[in-house]
Amino acid sequence: MSQTKILLDENEIPTHWYNVMADMPNPPAPPLGPDGKPVSPEMLGAIFPPGILEQEMSTERWIPIPDEVREILRLWRPSPLYRAHRLEAALGTPAKIYYKYEGVSPAGSHKPNSAVAQAYYNREAGIRRLTTETGAGQWGSSIALAGQMFGLEVRVYMVKVSYDQKPFRRSMMETWGAEVLASPTDMTESGRKILAQDPNSPGSLGIAISEAVEEAASRPDTNYALGSVLNHVVLHQTIIGQEVKKQFEKVGDYPDAIFAPCGGGSNFGGAAFPFLADKAAGREVRLVAVEPTSCPTLTRGHYAYDFGDSVGLTPLMLMYTLGHDFVPPGIHAGGLRYHGDSPLVSQLYKEGLIEAVAVPQIATFDAGVQFARTEGIIPAPESCHAIRACIDEALRCKEAGEARTLFFNLSGHGHFDMASFDKYFRGELEDYAYPEEAIHAALERLPKVETA
Amino acid sequence: MSQTKILLDENEIPTHWYNVMADMPNPPAPPLGPDGKPVSPEMLGAIFPPGILEQEMSTERWIPIPDEVREILRLWRPSPLYRAHRLEAALGTPAKIYYKYEGVSPAGSHKPNSAVAQAYYNREAGIRRLTTETGAGQWGSSIALAGQMFGLEVRVYMVKVSYDQKPFRRSMMETWGAEVLASPTDMTESGRKILAQDPNSPGSLGIAISEAVEEAASRPDTNYALGSVLNHVVLHQTIIGQEVKKQFEKVGDYPDAIFAPCGGGSNFGGAAFPFLADKAAGREVRLVAVEPTSCPTLTRGHYAYDFGDSVGLTPLMLMYTLGHDFVPPGIHAGGLRYHGDSPLVSQLYKEGLIEAVAVPQIATFDAGVQFARTEGIIPAPESCHAIRACIDEALRCKEAGEARTLFFNLSGHGHFDMASFDKYFRGELEDYAYPEEAIHAALERLPKVETA
Repeated sequence: MSQTKILLDENEIPTHWYNVMADMPNPPAPPLGPDGKPVSPEMLGAIFPPGILEQEMSTERWIPIPDEVREILRLWRPSPLYRAHRLEAALGTPAKIYYKYEGVSPAGSHKPNSAVAQAYYNREAGIRRLTTETGAGQWGSSIALAGQMFGLEVRVYMVKVSYDQKPFRRSMMETWGAEVLASPTDMTESGRKILAQDPNSPGSLGIAISEAVEEAASRPDTNYALGSVLNHVVLHQTIIGQEVKKQFEKVGDYPDAIFAPCGGGSNFGGAAFPFLADKAAGREVRLVAVEPTSCPTLTRGHYAYDFGDSVGLTPLMLMYTLGHDFVPPGIHAGGLRYHGDSPLVSQLYKEGLIEAVAVPQIATFDAGVQFARTEGIIPAPESCHAIRACIDEALRCKEAGEARTLFFNLSGHGHFDMASFDKYFRGELEDYAYPEEAIHAALERLPKVETA
Repeated sequence: MSQTKILLDENEIPTHWYNVMADMPNPPAPPLGPDGKPVSPEMLGAIFPPGILEQEMSTERWIPIPDEVREILRLWRPSPLYRAHRLEAALGTPAKIYYKYEGVSPAGSHKPNSAVAQAYYNREAGIRRLTTETGAGQWGSSIALAGQMFGLEVRVYMVKVSYDQKPFRRSMMETWGAEVLASPTDMTESGRKILAQDPNSPGSLGIAISEAVEEAASRPDTNYALGSVLNHVVLHQTIIGQEVKKQFEKVGDYPDAIFAPCGGGSNFGGAAFPFLADKAAGREVRLVAVEPTSCPTLTRGHYAYDFGDSVGLTPLMLMYTLGHDFVPPGIHAGGLRYHGDSPLVSQLYKEGLIEAVAVPQIATFDAGVQFARTEGIIPAPESCHAIRACIDEALRCKEAGEARTLFFNLSGHGHFDMASFDKYFRGELEDYAYPEEAIHAALERLPKVETA
């Protein structure tokens, strides 16, 4: 029988995070304050602990992972790398398909990789409470889990459309002891402002971030934790790509192309960045970020300074953006409904080192169901994006008769997304294409910044 | 750091199933037909394929696992054995606690171990469709998955109370291509009979079995698949206990006591029976079946011949039973709501080789939440029963200052049981104790059988 799972021992959990900033051809643009000047660490100190701030700014290539963090990661890591024999056979492709399954974490996705690290550094700094936002609920679950592990109270602002679509994500967070609110709430100024404009607002990640940041900034015992976008979050996720490299080594293979879903960018960056160093050293490997056509940040957004949240509380970041007031359609991949993207991912895309592709919603569920029926695991809608792009590539390989090695990151399972699969089977899902004029209009509303 | 997970390579998946019948002090009592005589294989041939029937009767100690079955099992097996460091610390017990996590299967429980084997033997026999029943939805999901893997159509009769409590289990089965009906239905004589008596019947495993068996018996292209109770199902689950033994060997340890939830008995038997041979050879190991106080089959039932289903379509089996017309309260561990128990488990309990304990519902959720908050994984309500009993033992060890080695089988995750956790947190769960007079009354209604 041919090998299905490539496992690592728990002592092979990486000892360091990989910081892609050390290998970028150009230094990343700094985040700016309202005055157009780079923000100081002190300004961010109101909501982040020193350990996290240091990582946010660091250009060191390797940053050690504290033992206490690795101890928690051992509960589920290293995650398995699979060879998708049954999917390959169903497609009839000569391509070899591998996937990394991050759904083995208790919260069911890659998100705890960063949540555990963030909870650790906050506890080290004497913080007692964390606030955060969540879209699909994957990040909220992860910070609830991590907060419980390090004895921190957690309050989660959950995007209302997801709160309604996924009630059991809330139950999961409560099981780990967190408090969950449907955002926008009337408990923050940011929330009240949005509700005044639209009392039926479905919410968005940007709005929920505003609420969580506002509360954290107003309480000294409370910090804020973000599930993607920022450098330190992407950094924590590089544990994925490092494991994948070791696992490919074990079977003497190497990917020609890597596909990962891309919302805020930490999942994509975590899987792909450890391969970027190889690419810089001349090795050919395509790194493909996959996003929804309904929220096409990289493929149709503007590369500009913009706020990370909807209200404008965060520093300005240079990134691909659809405009911070963009409220994406209520698609079922809640984790990909974000107006912006990681500045690191954005810059590398701008500079041509990585690729991006947008896929429509129904086709992603087609791919997810085909995957479930061959490989067994029911994937999260976010993960279905990577599966779609990878299957498309495998079919191109079939047409061209090319036996390429393809890899995708199966970022999580779909156990809390079954209502979306129900809608898919009932034919109730829609494909949204964001209209060109809306893209242009967003450009008009971007904050005017004098970049240095 | 101390080891958290004890892993096996996929080539260490057992090559044979262990048949406890070879090591039982007394031969098991045969199933009887309506005439009081042992049923012939031919009679069962209407609903089971030859490969399964052979296993049901075999007394061979080791039965080889077909390669095609092991190929599918490699998608998630071997499952990890965990050392529960964080739970031990929270309890302050000197006991060492280990658990096997069967929730790593795509369906989220141990059930696919048998579903895959059953689907295989049915396809080998040229069968095109399978019918089955499901309580909590774990078995139905598993046979849906296994049917998909071997190209069989699957129809699942799902106990109505579970169908209502767990809509997303249905979605999961549909994702794997199965058809799901709320039982009792008006599509079978058995279902219509029950509905005539009680149009609002919440259903029971016994009723759903009647419906599935009736349909399978009436169609030559269709067979029936049972998720527990029968010898071949317990046999298929012994892959669990065999892996556990290997994993304990790897760390040079051995359990003093084994706890597993016990509904129909396959989960308990699968985990415990491979240790029974050691026990027969003089090694001390306690094997403890854990059941709910609301459905106390082993601890308060009668050891007698009874039907496996509610209507009386199956052969009579000698087992512990609460009466085949017993409809247990709508507790949240649907997989443990069964009136009878595996004849093998029953006989070994009767003969004093294994133990049984009943635990009340609320205390099982207390244990499950404590487990989730220390070890991360949110357990299925069925699994919470084993956790409860194991924690109780660990606390006794603490009192007595005994550093015993405890093991429990974490048979599945609770991702489709979050509504039950919601009820627990809202204080809406109840403890049911089945009244003594009802236990006596059931005795009166047992079928009158002249045992040989």
